[in-house]
Amino acid sequence: MDDIKLIENELYSYIPDNETLEKNLIDSMAYSLKAGGKRIRPRLVLEFYRLIGDNEAVALPFGCALEMIHTYSLIHDDLPCMDDDDMRRGKPSNHKVFGEDIALLAGDALQSLAFEIMTSPAAVKLAGAEAACKCVNILASYCGALGMVGGQVIDLENESKSAPLEVIREMDIKKTGGLIKAACEMGCALGKASEEQMKAATLFGENIGISFQIMDDILDVTSSAETLGKPIGSDIDNDKTNYVSLLGIDRCRELVDELTDEALKALDVFDADTSALKKMALELSKREK
Amino acid sequence: MDDIKLIENELYSYIPDNETLEKNLIDSMAYSLKAGGKRIRPRLVLEFYRLIGDNEAVALPFGCALEMIHTYSLIHDDLPCMDDDDMRRGKPSNHKVFGEDIALLAGDALQSLAFEIMTSPAAVKLAGAEAACKCVNILASYCGALGMVGGQVIDLENESKSAPLEVIREMDIKKTGGLIKAACEMGCALGKASEEQMKAATLFGENIGISFQIMDDILDVTSSAETLGKPIGSDIDNDKTNYVSLLGIDRCRELVDELTDEALKALDVFDADTSALKKMALELSKREK
Repeated sequence: MDDIKLIENELYSYIPDNETLEKNLIDSMAYSLKAGGKRIRPRLVLEFYRLIGDNEAVALPFGCALEMIHTYSLIHDDLPCMDDDDMRRGKPSNHKVFGEDIALLAGDALQSLAFEIMTSPAAVKLAGAEAACKCVNILASYCGALGMVGGQVIDLENESKSAPLEVIREMDIKKTGGLIKAACEMGCALGKASEEQMKAATLFGENIGISFQIMDDILDVTSSAETLGKPIGSDIDNDKTNYVSLLGIDRCRELVDELTDEALKALDVFDADTSALKKMALELSKREK
Repeated sequence: MDDIKLIENELYSYIPDNETLEKNLIDSMAYSLKAGGKRIRPRLVLEFYRLIGDNEAVALPFGCALEMIHTYSLIHDDLPCMDDDDMRRGKPSNHKVFGEDIALLAGDALQSLAFEIMTSPAAVKLAGAEAACKCVNILASYCGALGMVGGQVIDLENESKSAPLEVIREMDIKKTGGLIKAACEMGCALGKASEEQMKAATLFGENIGISFQIMDDILDVTSSAETLGKPIGSDIDNDKTNYVSLLGIDRCRELVDELTDEALKALDVFDADTSALKKMALELSKREK
């Protein structure tokens, strides 16, 4: 079974039974969890765990928890008071189907569910209580006020064109990089990694995180230029400052390669076969959507 | 130092430094955390812990985590897509001061912060990793889809006058009782309570939780009748069904006393002095706001 299937099987097993008074809420949570995606974050948890540990069942609940946090953030991001997006992954966004109130609450409940899963008796038995606590702490801090949510606030306030590169970098490290770093570190924590290995995972995650965001910014420009039949690069004049508007597409493509190289180099401290992680990093740097 | 002061000192110590790019977010979190209240939930964590344990520093971070979850739920509850309340505890509600986007994100970040605090190295060292995991699991499940958030969904969908008492009871147990039960159980888990003690804590929490909500419903009617100069009970014709609209004020007052008696009886399994908990339960049943 491939990893995406493995992850999705486990992920869907955590959706509560909807034969309750909260049917609508649970259907709303399931709708967004089942909306697809590349499942990058849980795959990173699995791959980092595999560098050190030998029972991937240990890592699966934690990968699924991370995907729940990611899913909650997408639901809240699409709400009218945030990005006000009607569509997500080719389907109506959560609040367009279930209403704003249920979408808000589905996001809230997905965040709780993430922490519930990581500390279930089954997950704690597999991972050990110390490692489970460590993972909760890693994920909670990377998704909170000084992590993902903080990055969203920097993004909201980045309405002017004048934000300097350092601000954009901090925003990307927090908003996009937060959960990616959390994934790498959680995989390591579950495998009881050394301090040196943990640092390497952080470095890998940080570089992949920024690179991932820059690729998103590039794809935003190239795909909208394609749609509109304009020459690529002619409409990098977005509402907000980002790497592409500051540095241009060509320099950004170079940067993605440089960051990916940095990430790959960080893996040298692991004795294990890192080829799956390397393949994943390269695929992300060459993706077309 | 009284318990409220003790709790607030610790609570405020967890607010991140606001000298960051996310200043607005952190100020918004602090605004609602500092808005006062009776701090009932953290006080219950402390009191249950004290029945068994002897170092209250163990219980404080967990009580504060619970207060953060309670605070996030109030912020999200007041949003325009939910109850659309402009005021909370005599002050403008969070989104009236900081805007809907920041209020939404402050709620999200407070939820994360709760789980971060319970698994900080300091909290885990004091409580032990097993107990910390147990508390995260208790709190996450009582605040999630089948707990507090589930209760809010039942409330949202309770627009008709026809909801039967069983539905109202389930809504109150989940929406209001969820965090109160969590408080009692977390205090016990931290003190390494026996199974019998844990069951007693759940029973105490459930009875106090329903009683607390019925008191709220009674106060809603009596205070609005007072304001309008009408005879008490003449305007129990609220938008939504609740205990008061179904059973009348007099029966509800009796019910509060019965539930409080049940709660107090549950405490008999503890060898320790339960007078502080009894006093708290009685105060809640006689409160006037």
